[in-house]
Amino acid sequence: MMKFFDKSSILKAESFFRRDLVNSISGYKSLNLIGTQDRDGRTNLSPFSQVFHIGATPPLVGVLFRPNTVARHTLENILNTGYFTLNHVTEEFFKQAHQTAARYEESEFEATGIEKVYNEGFFAPFVAKSPVQVGCKLVEYQTLQVNGTVLVIASIELLCVDEKGLRADGSLDLNKLGTVTVSGLDEYHLGKKLARLSYPKPGKELEEI
Amino acid sequence: MMKFFDKSSILKAESFFRRDLVNSISGYKSLNLIGTQDRDGRTNLSPFSQVFHIGATPPLVGVLFRPNTVARHTLENILNTGYFTLNHVTEEFFKQAHQTAARYEESEFEATGIEKVYNEGFFAPFVAKSPVQVGCKLVEYQTLQVNGTVLVIASIELLCVDEKGLRADGSLDLNKLGTVTVSGLDEYHLGKKLARLSYPKPGKELEEI
Repeated sequence: MMKFFDKSSILKAESFFRRDLVNSISGYKSLNLIGTQDRDGRTNLSPFSQVFHIGATPPLVGVLFRPNTVARHTLENILNTGYFTLNHVTEEFFKQAHQTAARYEESEFEATGIEKVYNEGFFAPFVAKSPVQVGCKLVEYQTLQVNGTVLVIASIELLCVDEKGLRADGSLDLNKLGTVTVSGLDEYHLGKKLARLSYPKPGKELEEI
Repeated sequence: MMKFFDKSSILKAESFFRRDLVNSISGYKSLNLIGTQDRDGRTNLSPFSQVFHIGATPPLVGVLFRPNTVARHTLENILNTGYFTLNHVTEEFFKQAHQTAARYEESEFEATGIEKVYNEGFFAPFVAKSPVQVGCKLVEYQTLQVNGTVLVIASIELLCVDEKGLRADGSLDLNKLGTVTVSGLDEYHLGKKLARLSYPKPGKELEEI
């Protein structure tokens, strides 16, 4: 049975209800811990579900920073130093990853016990146990007039992947890597593979590949 | 064993390798079929994994349109009419959903057999079998200088949710709804829930809720 909400009933709902509902709408989301440090070497780690693909050539990612949230340290460090890392989360430490969203004064690496590592001289810290670790460099950013959300665009400078999940064609097997996905604000899942499908063409039957 | 790629080795890789790798980097992504129609009533349906949360009050979503792709009909319809729908995909029709990405001349609804429905007088068509159907109205758009990607921001005007997946607090149970997630360009998964976690606070133990 479908339940309908028009815009006015969404706006009249309790704020927690609206927040939980609207945050669930897009479906399962990517989950990345973003690692940064400031110019004094103080590290920071925070979970983000608004990381997306901008392009492959050159390789670019985008991150959305919601206004007035605990993510401001992360954003400040990115704008001040130009560097950050993206790190997948696994079942082993997803609770610690969730905990990094708490308002800590000290580094979330220390506060939650998530081990950091520095790779290949890259400025910002990575998460040692992440099967996918991406070093990114700020290219540009803009503030969306509509509500102050900041869109950061960055180039991929370094990529560290657990070989067990890297296929010959370059794609990543997230099941093998144990990558976690998030729904809503606080619900974590593994993926349960249905199928990988061939390139779609009109009149051609799809195959599982 | 971690494998390292610096930017130059990513750029030197075969283009298909780079494309598959970079598209996998962010992790599991939301999957939505976007439904539109033009002013002559010709409908269009296309899969997107770049749909994200902009805000809850007012309720806003963002969609990224990569330049020069089959998504141009979708984008044209949105810019010309101002309306589109987001529709979750389930195991029942994920192959048809994948197939909507093929270069059809006719409506993908007809070409793939995905049934459309119109809700509450909303202009654009929804996917009848989607457990989550969202009617959106264009608020603003901007083209990213870096590579011509278009960012569309829209308000949520209508939301239709299968009640079985709507919790009392407003969050959606995507496992119950059967929502599918995508990794890379072509790999589909269900979610396998680990846990829902309490609000994180410094010094406070997390609980499963």
